[in-house]
Amino acid sequence: MSSQDDLFHPVIELPEPTRQARYDRLIGLDTVKRQLRKEAVLLADPDRLHAWARQHHPGTDPAALQLFADRAPLFVFSGDVGSGKSALAESFGCDLAEQLDLPVYLYRLKLATRGSGLVGEMTALIGDAFSYVHEQGRRARDPRGVNTVLVLVVDEADALVQSREAQQMHHEDRAGVDAFLAGVDSLAGARLPVLVVLCTNRVGALDPALMRRAAATFTFVRPDDQQRRAVLTRALHGITVRPDTFDKLVQLTGPDTDRPGYTFSDLTQRLVPAAVLQAFPDGPLRDEHLLTVANELAPSPVFAETP
Amino acid sequence: MSSQDDLFHPVIELPEPTRQARYDRLIGLDTVKRQLRKEAVLLADPDRLHAWARQHHPGTDPAALQLFADRAPLFVFSGDVGSGKSALAESFGCDLAEQLDLPVYLYRLKLATRGSGLVGEMTALIGDAFSYVHEQGRRARDPRGVNTVLVLVVDEADALVQSREAQQMHHEDRAGVDAFLAGVDSLAGARLPVLVVLCTNRVGALDPALMRRAAATFTFVRPDDQQRRAVLTRALHGITVRPDTFDKLVQLTGPDTDRPGYTFSDLTQRLVPAAVLQAFPDGPLRDEHLLTVANELAPSPVFAETP
Amino acid sequence: MSSQDDLFHPVIELPEPTRQARYDRLIGLDTVKRQLRKEAVLLADPDRLHAWARQHHPGTDPAALQLFADRAPLFVFSGDVGSGKSALAESFGCDLAEQLDLPVYLYRLKLATRGSGLVGEMTALIGDAFSYVHEQGRRARDPRGVNTVLVLVVDEADALVQSREAQQMHHEDRAGVDAFLAGVDSLAGARLPVLVVLCTNRVGALDPALMRRAAATFTFVRPDDQQRRAVLTRALHGITVRPDTFDKLVQLTGPDTDRPGYTFSDLTQRLVPAAVLQAFPDGPLRDEHLLTVANELAPSPVFAETP
Amino acid sequence: MSSQDDLFHPVIELPEPTRQARYDRLIGLDTVKRQLRKEAVLLADPDRLHAWARQHHPGTDPAALQLFADRAPLFVFSGDVGSGKSALAESFGCDLAEQLDLPVYLYRLKLATRGSGLVGEMTALIGDAFSYVHEQGRRARDPRGVNTVLVLVVDEADALVQSREAQQMHHEDRAGVDAFLAGVDSLAGARLPVLVVLCTNRVGALDPALMRRAAATFTFVRPDDQQRRAVLTRALHGITVRPDTFDKLVQLTGPDTDRPGYTFSDLTQRLVPAAVLQAFPDGPLRDEHLLTVANELAPSPVFAETP
Amino acid sequence: MSSQDDLFHPVIELPEPTRQARYDRLIGLDTVKRQLRKEAVLLADPDRLHAWARQHHPGTDPAALQLFADRAPLFVFSGDVGSGKSALAESFGCDLAEQLDLPVYLYRLKLATRGSGLVGEMTALIGDAFSYVHEQGRRARDPRGVNTVLVLVVDEADALVQSREAQQMHHEDRAGVDAFLAGVDSLAGARLPVLVVLCTNRVGALDPALMRRAAATFTFVRPDDQQRRAVLTRALHGITVRPDTFDKLVQLTGPDTDRPGYTFSDLTQRLVPAAVLQAFPDGPLRDEHLLTVANELAPSPVFAETP
Amino acid sequence: MSSQDDLFHPVIELPEPTRQARYDRLIGLDTVKRQLRKEAVLLADPDRLHAWARQHHPGTDPAALQLFADRAPLFVFSGDVGSGKSALAESFGCDLAEQLDLPVYLYRLKLATRGSGLVGEMTALIGDAFSYVHEQGRRARDPRGVNTVLVLVVDEADALVQSREAQQMHHEDRAGVDAFLAGVDSLAGARLPVLVVLCTNRVGALDPALMRRAAATFTFVRPDDQQRRAVLTRALHGITVRPDTFDKLVQLTGPDTDRPGYTFSDLTQRLVPAAVLQAFPDGPLRDEHLLTVANELAPSPVFAETP
Repeated sequence: MSSQDDLFHPVIELPEPTRQARYDRLIGLDTVKRQLRKEAVLLADPDRLHAWARQHHPGTDPAALQLFADRAPLFVFSGDVGSGKSALAESFGCDLAEQLDLPVYLYRLKLATRGSGLVGEMTALIGDAFSYVHEQGRRARDPRGVNTVLVLVVDEADALVQSREAQQMHHEDRAGVDAFLAGVDSLAGARLPVLVVLCTNRVGALDPALMRRAAATFTFVRPDDQQRRAVLTRALHGITVRPDTFDKLVQLTGPDTDRPGYTFSDLTQRLVPAAVLQAFPDGPLRDEHLLTVANELAPSPVFAETP
Repeated sequence: MSSQDDLFHPVIELPEPTRQARYDRLIGLDTVKRQLRKEAVLLADPDRLHAWARQHHPGTDPAALQLFADRAPLFVFSGDVGSGKSALAESFGCDLAEQLDLPVYLYRLKLATRGSGLVGEMTALIGDAFSYVHEQGRRARDPRGVNTVLVLVVDEADALVQSREAQQMHHEDRAGVDAFLAGVDSLAGARLPVLVVLCTNRVGALDPALMRRAAATFTFVRPDDQQRRAVLTRALHGITVRPDTFDKLVQLTGPDTDRPGYTFSDLTQRLVPAAVLQAFPDGPLRDEHLLTVANELAPSPVFAETP
Repeated sequence: MSSQDDLFHPVIELPEPTRQARYDRLIGLDTVKRQLRKEAVLLADPDRLHAWARQHHPGTDPAALQLFADRAPLFVFSGDVGSGKSALAESFGCDLAEQLDLPVYLYRLKLATRGSGLVGEMTALIGDAFSYVHEQGRRARDPRGVNTVLVLVVDEADALVQSREAQQMHHEDRAGVDAFLAGVDSLAGARLPVLVVLCTNRVGALDPALMRRAAATFTFVRPDDQQRRAVLTRALHGITVRPDTFDKLVQLTGPDTDRPGYTFSDLTQRLVPAAVLQAFPDGPLRDEHLLTVANELAPSPVFAETP
Repeated sequence: MSSQDDLFHPVIELPEPTRQARYDRLIGLDTVKRQLRKEAVLLADPDRLHAWARQHHPGTDPAALQLFADRAPLFVFSGDVGSGKSALAESFGCDLAEQLDLPVYLYRLKLATRGSGLVGEMTALIGDAFSYVHEQGRRARDPRGVNTVLVLVVDEADALVQSREAQQMHHEDRAGVDAFLAGVDSLAGARLPVLVVLCTNRVGALDPALMRRAAATFTFVRPDDQQRRAVLTRALHGITVRPDTFDKLVQLTGPDTDRPGYTFSDLTQRLVPAAVLQAFPDGPLRDEHLLTVANELAPSPVFAETP
Repeated sequence: MSSQDDLFHPVIELPEPTRQARYDRLIGLDTVKRQLRKEAVLLADPDRLHAWARQHHPGTDPAALQLFADRAPLFVFSGDVGSGKSALAESFGCDLAEQLDLPVYLYRLKLATRGSGLVGEMTALIGDAFSYVHEQGRRARDPRGVNTVLVLVVDEADALVQSREAQQMHHEDRAGVDAFLAGVDSLAGARLPVLVVLCTNRVGALDPALMRRAAATFTFVRPDDQQRRAVLTRALHGITVRPDTFDKLVQLTGPDTDRPGYTFSDLTQRLVPAAVLQAFPDGPLRDEHLLTVANELAPSPVFAETP
Repeated sequence: MSSQDDLFHPVIELPEPTRQARYDRLIGLDTVKRQLRKEAVLLADPDRLHAWARQHHPGTDPAALQLFADRAPLFVFSGDVGSGKSALAESFGCDLAEQLDLPVYLYRLKLATRGSGLVGEMTALIGDAFSYVHEQGRRARDPRGVNTVLVLVVDEADALVQSREAQQMHHEDRAGVDAFLAGVDSLAGARLPVLVVLCTNRVGALDPALMRRAAATFTFVRPDDQQRRAVLTRALHGITVRPDTFDKLVQLTGPDTDRPGYTFSDLTQRLVPAAVLQAFPDGPLRDEHLLTVANELAPSPVFAETP
């Protein structure tokens, strides 16, 4: 049995300020945020669904409620680099913690879970990872109800669970996909307060058998004008910037015929810091610094799926 | 010799309520269901065939009866993701149990049967799996007749028995196909109450030598209008839904020029639960919830066979 | 040294009723049957050739007789799935046994002879297989003449002896081909009562150095109208079928522009049993059952050689 | 734990005369030089940023300052062979040392860090390399502030962190990319005086997840007319060369329709030494020697990215 | 050190009747036969060359004689399947033995020399093979001169020494080519009575470094009309065949627009024996038998070099 | 640490008559010969460069002299098979020995240096090879100056140091290139009397990082008319040949539209010996023999670089 450290990056208890801030900065993803919240609530307290049915569909126990038992608590976040999918996957637990007033533990699967080379290890390690989460999930439920929620995030999931449509797939990979499917299925039956989130740049590369199990698939795109404006306004809080500079920045950072628009991280980790560095140490950050950098800085390239 | 746990997912005794419910939900597959029932009956009690011949073709022993001795109890279920083939494979034993008034044991081959990496192991494991089933099959027959029926399901069979037409096939795979063929042949001769079902998305990928041995090949497709209506009616039992909403749902979930229709699981694991989640917790599930989700939810993509 | 069980499927002594029946069912293969009979006779009793020469070409010892010493007792059966090549390879020994009034032992090489993974094993195993057959062949000849005949069948031979034209061939395979060539050559010189038959779907895949050694290559095709009629007549013996139904069945099971005709096994292992199952258990097998199944059942797909 | 010698080429303390001379010879790279200097200053003394903000944006603590905490101290130098990127990466520490009046240690990752063959080693070695640098970085910060700066250079980085877009990527490589990402992330949080520079001929080959983390990406090109003139003037200091010879040399070493221009090293390691060798030992270096060699010497070929 | 049995097929002392007969049957290869004879004579007794020079070019020692010291005793026989190259390689020693009145030992390299799988073994085995031949070659020369001649035949040489132009070549292969080159070079210097003959279907696949060392390369083709007539006449000696039947056979077995002509072995191992079998046992071999078989028998396919 | 015998073919002390003769036979390569001589002189006695500068550029120490310290003593010989590059690489030390009046040791790297299969060995072996040469190089310099010169020849270098542009490159190869680069760099700094010569048929396959380090790259072509005439005249010394026969031979052995010209070795190892063999033993070598062979003998094929 592998230890927790072999399987996961350091586990993080949410809420936590940095991730809370990231969650708040993710503007325009309200639909996803809302659905994740409901799913988590139902996992944490399944009786709420029956209570809801009793209240709103009195008289009979709707057949639809039974269908929930067949679903896996699996969510797929797909989208381009910098579209916020990983940031959301690692931060939405902050919101759940607040909603449920429970601690939420964030488990991030190490991709090194693929094993240190011995064929068969990947299968064992993925099995161990799910066993571990399963075990923690069982402890998260005590006679008085759920005491914590677990979120398991698999970033760059395509590396782990890519489609068998690609015929040349290595058997070991195949066995890894099987192990993953088995892990997801084991959670589906167990009704534990565990959510699994797969993030991928290449939704087309995920195995159909896995996609079929996803309760929902969310597609993320680069921020639109409104989102970029909101991100920039927030990031430049405390600096005096002219309104028309914001207009120009929104335009300069948007897509045009030759290139895509800026990603979230292009805005916050490149554009604004670079403008600050231009000003530093000689004088204040001025609008021209921002505009100059926005003119020169190319957005992150789009991750191209191999056709 | 590998243990049962190395070879199979946990063995399930049928009938069992969840699988019975799935079997019942599989609407429109009556032909397959009927043929499987007959095959199982003949395997469980071969004398019935001769009795039938004596009754309906009196006087001579028809040559055709001898041909049954050369057939392998092998069935191929091919079809798209979500077409119900795996669900049927894992649930038709419920019907057999009822028909024969005997317990039916469901063995699901682990794909990890491909071995933990040592070349030659796959062969050994497949051999072990068939030996195990063979042994159980022999115990299933005692002097008073058949006391149980065994169903061996190989899901995603293409991963295990893909065609040697693909020249670059690894030898180990080749040996695995051989082991599988040998296993099937050993059952053919033994007249044991064992049925083998292969499920595959890609019937074209199965080895011709295997296909040749199949007693029957069934092709599954996504549910048609009538089937979708029946599935939805059943799933929404207990909820008040207007008849014309059903009409619209059937239409919205059907194929059009741009995309395929919904799969069985798209209907039961995605559409209805997502609509419930939209309503929850604020109010009852209304027709609009269903229609909204049906408008937004894309059906599972078709599994594309590499040409 | 590997044991017999590692090298061969269980050895079968011919004649044996099931295989005799298969041999008899193979209609339209008389040329092959006749030539195989002659070859076996000459191997079993080489003096017959000289006796023939003395009788029919008296005076000199024809040079042609010397050429027989350079030939390998190797026959290649190539053809599509279901064309009867494997069935013939495994059953013509019944005829030899009758002709020679000697027992014939059928050795079927396990493809797992390719070894359990250690490079070099395949070479050793093939070497062992030929040594074993060679040794048995020597015992088959005693001072009074030949007391048994051995037939070594290599089914799916392309997997074992594929052409070196495919440059990316693995060295181990290459060594396996070498071992096979050496084995064949050792038999060529020894004049033992051993016949080697290679069956392959893909004659183009066999190594030219092997093809060059073949005493004869026979090409098998799917049964024609006459053969299908004969097969059906035989299989439906004991059932009352109208003559025009046979006409229709022959036509329905033949090739058309869209698909190939039925194989031998499509007729005997699919068409007739499926019709029986349709009738069973409610009433007699009627002509409509046969016609319905023939209308619905698709023939086995043709094995496509990778170009 | 691997030792320093396993992980890095011999560590070099900067400033050091040879590298200082190289740094000075890199003409026309002032923008890069300036930005690297600022980044290093901020890493060495983060309070300067807040001091700047207090002075130039008084009253509030600008939100932008927080964004610096999320950035990785990672810089990507991309460009053609001979464009000076590696030379700058290994020499800009001389400037930092002078600016900060601190010693700068140059760590050059061995590409043999990919491991000596055992799968899993690469991951361990990269992990060790970052742990080592991390540990040294922590020692570089004492209560009184930063006492040294570390520069980690990964030359030919594409070999180490190539993109997962290339589907056929080996898992071990994938795990190596993961280890590298983890190492970069660990530095991002730690605010240690460590800068990481990746040099690559093929920026398109770097993993997007890595590119996303880069604080800045600089593209290097071959020297233009002005740069080549400056390099040549410097290299020929002490030799009498006619002005129009310089004009001709600048022209001869520039790009034309058929070929690229000279690289920095073509000028200093090929053109001038070859001219000296032509003159040696018989007479002085004359203008004709330079012109003759410039006429004959082909520039280094451009590194072609596989499309 | 590997033993002789690991390296070579059983060594054969020439002359030997079967091979002598094959040599005699190879009609139309007189040029090759003559040159091989001269080469062997010079290797067996190098002084003959100087004696020749003294006689025919008296007065000076021609520079050309020195060039012989740089040549490797390596001959390449290339050509299609059945063109006689292997037969000649393994039989021309009979002629040498007669010419020199010395025994000639035929060593046939096992292709399994490629090793039993451990990388590095192929190199060692090839090295051992040449060491062995070298050692035997040294013993073949005693103070009184040469007492035996050795011929080393490498059949299917392309499998062993294929070109490095094929970039994807495995390193082990590369090392094998190196070992082979080293072996050939060691013989070149030693002036031992050893000749090396490489046979290949694919001369284009041999490594250029090897081709460069070949003293001569002979290209073999299928027999032309005259050769086929001679072969048939010889093979049918003792049978009465009409002259015009020979004419027809020559024509029927020649190439036409759709197919190549018969190979040597097609004539002797297929055509004539098959005709005999047609006649046997009922009557004499008649012209019609020959013509019928010639009409029906397809020539061996041409070995297609991958382009 | 590997021993010398593992790393190098037997070390040869130059001058040595056979190689001296080869060197003398290489006609038309005077430019290369001259430059190699100068480089070696400077390595053996670096002060000569400063002496030269003092004499011819008095007053200042030219900056150009410093550039020599950055150069690696690496020379690339590229060209077709038979163009003389390997012959020159292995023989120019004879000239150096004469010029410097010092012994020159020729080290020829074994390509088996790639290791006996354990990944990581290649790196170690190349490292050992350079360490060994480095150590010998240090011994070659004593207080009184240089006492020997070392030449390290890497023939078929592309097999060892091929370009990383080929993405599918094996990591082990990559590590080998790194080891080679490190070895070259270690020599660059050390100013030892060591020259490294890489020979390759495929200059395009060498790693750009290696090409960048080359002090000079020489391209070799097949001999032109004048060179062929000189080679033939020399080889036929002592035989009476008519002048117009030489004219015809030069023409016959030159390139035409269909084929390339003869290589050096085609002339000396094929054409002349084959003509001698035609004459031997019956009469003198006549002009017709030469012309006949020249008419029939095809030149070595050009080594085709995979595009």
